[in-house]
Amino acid sequence: MTPSPSIDELIDALKRLPGLGPRSASRIAYQLLSEDRTQALNLAQALEKAVKTVRHCLMCNTLTDSDLCPICSDKGRDATKLCVVESPADQRVIEETLAYDGLYFVLMGLISPVEGIGAHELHLDRLIERVQGDQSLKEVLIATPFTPQGDATAHFIAKVLSSRRKDIRISRLARGIPAGVELEYTDANTIASAIFARKS
Amino acid sequence: MTPSPSIDELIDALKRLPGLGPRSASRIAYQLLSEDRTQALNLAQALEKAVKTVRHCLMCNTLTDSDLCPICSDKGRDATKLCVVESPADQRVIEETLAYDGLYFVLMGLISPVEGIGAHELHLDRLIERVQGDQSLKEVLIATPFTPQGDATAHFIAKVLSSRRKDIRISRLARGIPAGVELEYTDANTIASAIFARKS
Repeated sequence: MTPSPSIDELIDALKRLPGLGPRSASRIAYQLLSEDRTQALNLAQALEKAVKTVRHCLMCNTLTDSDLCPICSDKGRDATKLCVVESPADQRVIEETLAYDGLYFVLMGLISPVEGIGAHELHLDRLIERVQGDQSLKEVLIATPFTPQGDATAHFIAKVLSSRRKDIRISRLARGIPAGVELEYTDANTIASAIFARKS
Repeated sequence: MTPSPSIDELIDALKRLPGLGPRSASRIAYQLLSEDRTQALNLAQALEKAVKTVRHCLMCNTLTDSDLCPICSDKGRDATKLCVVESPADQRVIEETLAYDGLYFVLMGLISPVEGIGAHELHLDRLIERVQGDQSLKEVLIATPFTPQGDATAHFIAKVLSSRRKDIRISRLARGIPAGVELEYTDANTIASAIFARKS
């Protein structure tokens, strides 16, 4: 018998989060319901606000709070460079390196035939249109991870874009980032060196 | 530059939770803001409901949804036994064993002089009153952990209760070797206790 169905529901919702098992979910639930419950209310409010506010940037497709994200609307960014990343989390770690000042395109995934994710699902037509239409663009830096899906996606994008525009440099992050490791979990220094050592 | 202050706030709220670092907080935030956001809303609702609903049981002090918890109000429980535990989480694991059918008293902490937690802070007067006043009670099982604070708390409770009521049994959980654990990886104290408490 459990003394509180509300706590059971909270633990149940917490243990569905990635990386949390039943024990850590229960530990978190009881801490949130300790004497001072402002932490729990803050989290609930942050969740609701993010769910209501966060949408895709109409230009780069990243998750952001307005129709156009602050990076796309920043006139100070170098509009001759476009960096293609898998996810907003990857974009976040690249921004943290301070080694890149260009614009982004966020795929929200990678090509993965087994999961039924192809060029169409990733809105690659939007990326291709943008690269074809924007004559100020001089370089596309593909920053997908060095995994089979990341390689396939990079290969596909490089092939399509180079067939449409002969006058741009298409580069990829230098190896040096360990293969098979998510970009999100790589330290900023390693990512920075890979940006400086990028190869055509 | 970060493309979404709302996501930053959510990651910030998540990384304050026990056991979550910045990377896991970010991973959880992005999963919650993926295409299907019902999981995020469920979590927010579960949090708000629990914060509003959960209170202390007037009888046993556990966290519950009503003034009297379902265990205290269950006439089918063996009211001759009272189990004293540190927290609702400990009560939960004891309930999961199905090996105990008595009532509980939940301390919501342990005696800890360095943290300024004494008998008064733990509402031990409520426990003492209950044991003194309830003549149907025949046994108090002290289930505090085998840590310095748990030992001090158990010792204090046993001393006070046995001075007030000579006619009840005061017991503590047996020390011993945990099931499924190699003897090689068990600490010497635990093995020593298991030797002293050996059974024919």
